[in-house]
Amino acid sequence: MSQHSTTTPSLTGTVYLVGAGPGDAELITVKGLNLLRCAGAVVYDALVNPVLLDETPPAAERIYAGKRAGNHAMRQEEINEVLRAKAHEHAVVVRLKGGDPFVFGRGGEEMAYLRAAGVAVEVVPGISSAIGAAAAAGVPVTHRAVSGSFAVVAGYQSGDAPGQPRWDALALIDTVVVMMGLRNAGHIARSLIGAGRAAETPAMAVFAATLPTQQVVIATLDTLEAAVAVMDLDAPATIVVGDVVNLADPAAYVRREMWALPIAPALFGVSTPVR
Amino acid sequence: MSQHSTTTPSLTGTVYLVGAGPGDAELITVKGLNLLRCAGAVVYDALVNPVLLDETPPAAERIYAGKRAGNHAMRQEEINEVLRAKAHEHAVVVRLKGGDPFVFGRGGEEMAYLRAAGVAVEVVPGISSAIGAAAAAGVPVTHRAVSGSFAVVAGYQSGDAPGQPRWDALALIDTVVVMMGLRNAGHIARSLIGAGRAAETPAMAVFAATLPTQQVVIATLDTLEAAVAVMDLDAPATIVVGDVVNLADPAAYVRREMWALPIAPALFGVSTPVR
Repeated sequence: MSQHSTTTPSLTGTVYLVGAGPGDAELITVKGLNLLRCAGAVVYDALVNPVLLDETPPAAERIYAGKRAGNHAMRQEEINEVLRAKAHEHAVVVRLKGGDPFVFGRGGEEMAYLRAAGVAVEVVPGISSAIGAAAAAGVPVTHRAVSGSFAVVAGYQSGDAPGQPRWDALALIDTVVVMMGLRNAGHIARSLIGAGRAAETPAMAVFAATLPTQQVVIATLDTLEAAVAVMDLDAPATIVVGDVVNLADPAAYVRREMWALPIAPALFGVSTPVR
Repeated sequence: MSQHSTTTPSLTGTVYLVGAGPGDAELITVKGLNLLRCAGAVVYDALVNPVLLDETPPAAERIYAGKRAGNHAMRQEEINEVLRAKAHEHAVVVRLKGGDPFVFGRGGEEMAYLRAAGVAVEVVPGISSAIGAAAAAGVPVTHRAVSGSFAVVAGYQSGDAPGQPRWDALALIDTVVVMMGLRNAGHIARSLIGAGRAAETPAMAVFAATLPTQQVVIATLDTLEAAVAVMDLDAPATIVVGDVVNLADPAAYVRREMWALPIAPALFGVSTPVR
């Protein structure tokens, strides 16, 4: 029956919004890697592990979209337009983003734009630093009798929120994860304390999670600002607040070195187009 | 220098707590798949895609640990003990869990038990349904000017929470994700409304997210209980509450069919031990 299908093939390709994960190249999904391997074009962000770009076919276009706190190579409108244009040139266009495309990744905007422009778009989730950065330090965001809820918020005005973060509400959630909040660590900690969270609540910051350069700073709400002040405040970091931080593995920053294995071709075989 | 290393090799193996992702086999991480391919034993849960077990070597032990709401094949203490014992028999033991091991997955308990028993343990995160189920319906948990925060909670007494869920706080978070809450959908909705969330707030339930059988029910807080009542209440489902639900893709349940491709050996190559 399929041989006699009368469906007209689409003249445009599909844009896949793919999450690259928190840093370690091997934390991309199998689906994400397969798509990279048959991509005609990849549009990638600053925090994406460059090893992943080596997985694209030699002829693939590699377009840098930049985007690190205040240092954008392209405006969002330009990125949207590039994705639309490339979908008219290639069957498979990969929009590769650090973490997960739908967690402070502007993936929703790109999806809405492409749909409105009549371009097929699919989301391939990635490991978000919201959960993965804590895990890389040995910390579960939920844990028996310790944490039955967690909340995730951006530590700067991301433009996502309809208003200011509700620290009064966040203070009542067992585990609070703050992404991109390093420069506001003092304000965040004081806001949570002001909303009733104990000053001695364990708090940590995980830098370059899952990469060989990973560093973990463990403090309390009261001491977090001073503890991170000696670090590189431009580094990507995730703050985790709550009693689960007591489970942090002191060896986590050492163990991460084994996560830095490059993607060996022998492990994954030859690139074969999905379609 | 490494040729003259005096380090004594460990006599026990390593237990890898690996997240299998929300359902689609291709949503496991590359690292997770590589570990499965060199595992001496895999201890897996009910919600894990069985296609993944086919990726283990023919000689690998496959041990079913069960666990679906009230129907456990093994008690947690037994699972812990099996993991410890298998680490004395195999270099690589994979504990394969649905979603992410550290999001309501008891991963923290297993990690703590194994560390205390002197067994090396590593976490390999997976795509959590907390984020992935919404994405599979086209819904981002954060979105510009709509949602700058999300919270995740279990819809039944998971044993993780130190007390009852704080619906008063959760009601103030832009997007609320409730896992394993289908049978309590009415209570959850009434709790959020009672805490001040508008009765007409969009709410959806995603069943069997990312699988060919995926179904999405879209309602409001007020109508959620009635809307899910016609569904299989034993099915795995994730509830998402908030204005982001307005972005849901009506075609999501159709498009998921293309996510059901089995893992083709040609795409991923031959199994090669990591060590």
